[in-house]
Amino acid sequence: MQGGEMIRIPGDDGERMDAARNRRLLLDAAAEIVATCGPDKLTTDAVARRAGVGKGTVYRRFGNRAGLLHALADEAGRSFQTAFMAGPPPLGPGAPPLDRLIAFGEASIGRMRLDGQILRAAEQRGGPDLEHPTQRLTRLHLSMLLREAGVQDPELAAYQLAAFLNAGLLLHLQENRGMTNARLTASWSVLVTALATAARR
Amino acid sequence: MQGGEMIRIPGDDGERMDAARNRRLLLDAAAEIVATCGPDKLTTDAVARRAGVGKGTVYRRFGNRAGLLHALADEAGRSFQTAFMAGPPPLGPGAPPLDRLIAFGEASIGRMRLDGQILRAAEQRGGPDLEHPTQRLTRLHLSMLLREAGVQDPELAAYQLAAFLNAGLLLHLQENRGMTNARLTASWSVLVTALATAARR
Repeated sequence: MQGGEMIRIPGDDGERMDAARNRRLLLDAAAEIVATCGPDKLTTDAVARRAGVGKGTVYRRFGNRAGLLHALADEAGRSFQTAFMAGPPPLGPGAPPLDRLIAFGEASIGRMRLDGQILRAAEQRGGPDLEHPTQRLTRLHLSMLLREAGVQDPELAAYQLAAFLNAGLLLHLQENRGMTNARLTASWSVLVTALATAARR
Repeated sequence: MQGGEMIRIPGDDGERMDAARNRRLLLDAAAEIVATCGPDKLTTDAVARRAGVGKGTVYRRFGNRAGLLHALADEAGRSFQTAFMAGPPPLGPGAPPLDRLIAFGEASIGRMRLDGQILRAAEQRGGPDLEHPTQRLTRLHLSMLLREAGVQDPELAAYQLAAFLNAGLLLHLQENRGMTNARLTASWSVLVTALATAARR
């Protein structure tokens, strides 16, 4: 059943568009679907329809639905990463480590409103992927600040803190337990302040 | 295609055995398969073969593979629950809250060697189920001790601490990152001691 109609002809479906623009078009379509209908409605078919391209184009760029979700999550993470690595203090460089730790938790909690659905859907392929580059970068950042703050075993403490900031848990607390961002941030501050204070003794 | 051979006749396959003994037989068979071959090899078929009963018996008791895994995880959790709720101190009642918190983390980390594979496999149906009775009991216990220790917002702090003790994360640190139980326990102690010390100030 290898019908000729299944073979895509190079040149159709925007193959002549430059790759970056094509990718942008598809990611925007995917982000719109998630924002309007939720991540459950995100399929390669729906993205192809919305972007006005063939399914083959979506497939070639992102593989399956999971690939699309990860691309969306990576994109959502990129501006956050820029903010904590190179943005203004206290989230970015230039503030004391404890202030930056507090700001990091606050920003992680706050971005759930916008990015949470995508992050959770990407995580749901069997819980958070602890060795995903985004997770590693989060821990690298946390462990750098924990080390600066004098915390013992900063590498492992970073795993502990990152476990609390995963999207599945934060969204559960916000949506199902009705916890406010103020409450989540306060508790995060207590935790990192306690660690930093203990390290100074 | 509703063939008569698909209808199980009451009375076969050990239906005459008492329910508890039957359940015991199946759970022992399942635990043996996990211990010998790993949780990947646990199927309702394999359990039926090993226990010498029909597939229908396994199905009636536990439904599917996930039901079996959850029954195994619940059972593994029960003796641990008895130990922290009614066993000797410092894990059980009678020790100061901080000592009990430290002992709880140490015991949670230590039991992964025996129960970890089962717990992780049960969790893998999309990450840990935060509202599963076992998870709730863990948090209830942690929040009781945190409250006794004077920690602010003990309910939320229990979520933070429980996030670190989930099987997927602990096994990842032990197996893939080569972290020893001594190191994991030391870091847990630093964390809960910092929280309890901050609460006393």
